[in-house]
Amino acid sequence: MSIRYREEIKNIQPYKPGKPIEDVKREYNIEKVVKLASNENPLGCSPKVKEAIINAVDKLAIYPDGNHTELKNILAKKHKVKADNILPSSGLDEMIDMIAKTFIGKNDEAIMADITFPRYAQTTEIMGGRPVIVPLKEFSFDLNGILEKISPRTKVIWICNPNNPTGTMITEREFVEFLDKVPSNILVISDEAYREYVTKDDYPFNSIDLTKKYENLLIMRTFSKAYGLAGIRVAYTIGNKEILQYINRVRGPFNVNSLAQVAAIAAIEDEEFLKKSYEINLQGKNFLYEEFDKLKLHYVPSETNHILVNVGRDGQEVFIEMQKRGVIIRPVMGNYIRVSIGTMDENKMFIENLIEVLKE
Amino acid sequence: MSIRYREEIKNIQPYKPGKPIEDVKREYNIEKVVKLASNENPLGCSPKVKEAIINAVDKLAIYPDGNHTELKNILAKKHKVKADNILPSSGLDEMIDMIAKTFIGKNDEAIMADITFPRYAQTTEIMGGRPVIVPLKEFSFDLNGILEKISPRTKVIWICNPNNPTGTMITEREFVEFLDKVPSNILVISDEAYREYVTKDDYPFNSIDLTKKYENLLIMRTFSKAYGLAGIRVAYTIGNKEILQYINRVRGPFNVNSLAQVAAIAAIEDEEFLKKSYEINLQGKNFLYEEFDKLKLHYVPSETNHILVNVGRDGQEVFIEMQKRGVIIRPVMGNYIRVSIGTMDENKMFIENLIEVLKE
Repeated sequence: MSIRYREEIKNIQPYKPGKPIEDVKREYNIEKVVKLASNENPLGCSPKVKEAIINAVDKLAIYPDGNHTELKNILAKKHKVKADNILPSSGLDEMIDMIAKTFIGKNDEAIMADITFPRYAQTTEIMGGRPVIVPLKEFSFDLNGILEKISPRTKVIWICNPNNPTGTMITEREFVEFLDKVPSNILVISDEAYREYVTKDDYPFNSIDLTKKYENLLIMRTFSKAYGLAGIRVAYTIGNKEILQYINRVRGPFNVNSLAQVAAIAAIEDEEFLKKSYEINLQGKNFLYEEFDKLKLHYVPSETNHILVNVGRDGQEVFIEMQKRGVIIRPVMGNYIRVSIGTMDENKMFIENLIEVLKE
Repeated sequence: MSIRYREEIKNIQPYKPGKPIEDVKREYNIEKVVKLASNENPLGCSPKVKEAIINAVDKLAIYPDGNHTELKNILAKKHKVKADNILPSSGLDEMIDMIAKTFIGKNDEAIMADITFPRYAQTTEIMGGRPVIVPLKEFSFDLNGILEKISPRTKVIWICNPNNPTGTMITEREFVEFLDKVPSNILVISDEAYREYVTKDDYPFNSIDLTKKYENLLIMRTFSKAYGLAGIRVAYTIGNKEILQYINRVRGPFNVNSLAQVAAIAAIEDEEFLKKSYEINLQGKNFLYEEFDKLKLHYVPSETNHILVNVGRDGQEVFIEMQKRGVIIRPVMGNYIRVSIGTMDENKMFIENLIEVLKE
């Protein structure tokens, strides 16, 4: 094969999808498989979403509204910003990609934590940029470490708050102090995919207001987690309209599909469902904390719907042993695994099997 | 605003969406608006698709299958290729973007026609590459002209067959002769978005077989047109598995949403619907040909679901006048407009209003 790809993607690994639940069932000949690997909402999504999709299904032959008019208007009202301060995307995956494509050129730098969401680094590399990695400190963002890494080549700083996969968060005070020190020509992106699960009062719940003062700040939100819409791909980003217009230059014309737009609109309106999702998550988290304590396993207290826990054995091995028993989790590094918080039944099934695996 | 975007996107214009039908109704105070501007299927989509979506709506909280396993298996069977010769995408828009991101670096060249689908040029420019434009000859692809433009910098050649917006096609013999002359290290992409509407026998209906002989050939197909699924975003590309693996490196992990995957699977199975779409299109095309002949308007005979017609007056003006009357078409260049073939009622409404507008 003599086709030449771009030099920049030479070392990029294609995404390796996890095994579908059906394959796990077949391979290990088990009936019940529980997936606690992708931080999905165990309650599903709002029944209002299902209704909205069923009502919209007759218009599938029509292209989506490329301007996302209705979705932006509803989000603008909710967040007290203007519609042109909002840019919807096909999940945050697409937005991360568009941000790299807009701002990262050859040898440009993007600063990010290690460990954090892996797409920040991959999309930087695809554009020929260099991910500048700042290790976490005690599983939390080292904001001073990030500031020290700023160089004339820095274009973007990726913040994930709360962080995936550690579940730790940056407080409002820490965040504002940080923003005060970042030069205004560097874009700061705060990925708040898990913010609906935060329990602490000092989280920057006012982050959208902060975009008015800090014009170099973008806030990313998603419907994939607490809203339970991972399958349909819809998220949005809020910030300065000029910056969003730059990103708009690289956006495909119909990036958010029609059913995703109606699903998001219906999801926003069901606050009851969001509350229920928060509560079941909190309950599950407390249960898992207690069980980990009993097992004397170190875990990182989480402000998300997942917990990073040290299982005292190679995480990859534990992942495989758990999978054989029908529980899919995510090995992270060394002895750490990440488990998504499920329904109480799922959490119990996870703990029962973990106990067995760790006994071996 | 001191945020610096990539130099390459300096002159890229963001996509300007057309007016939503509801806005046109409100603005001109009219009740009935017909959109013949986006080459959508006037029959909608197969009822089997609606059923499949309604059945899948309970799994929205789960991430899509990032490997598109079932969809690829069904397409592989249909096209007599292996699953790894297929790469699904979120419409062809996403695939065109991914191809540019995989193969086009700074100052690389991509050869394409003028006029053709505009995303080939935009995605090339976004990556810092140079679109090399070969004017159409008598509204058809000038394949010799394309061959003459090949240079050491040529990475990609974009073929649109049949072509949007002219509706003209390249025959099998012309295509094979062309492929024989293209160096094997240059990627040839044939965008066959409209191929289900082709009426002529000498179209390269065997193009997928050709990918076995010509390893540098990719064939793009979509569910947005004859299958009537433009709203949900799903398409696929067939070719050499190594080339598809390169493209896979830049693909987002969940690029095709879950409902799009089940919709496509259901759509493939309804051949009856496809046949009906073909027939109503042929009937509408013949009606419009006759009416254009009566009006002595020059049109380009079309192998698609749209017709390029010279209305003898500035197309932009005619677009605005038609819109006031509730008919949305697409101005293309000079006196040419593109009209999508609709239901017979829609075609008649278009002609009646066109006659009035041209009388003025």
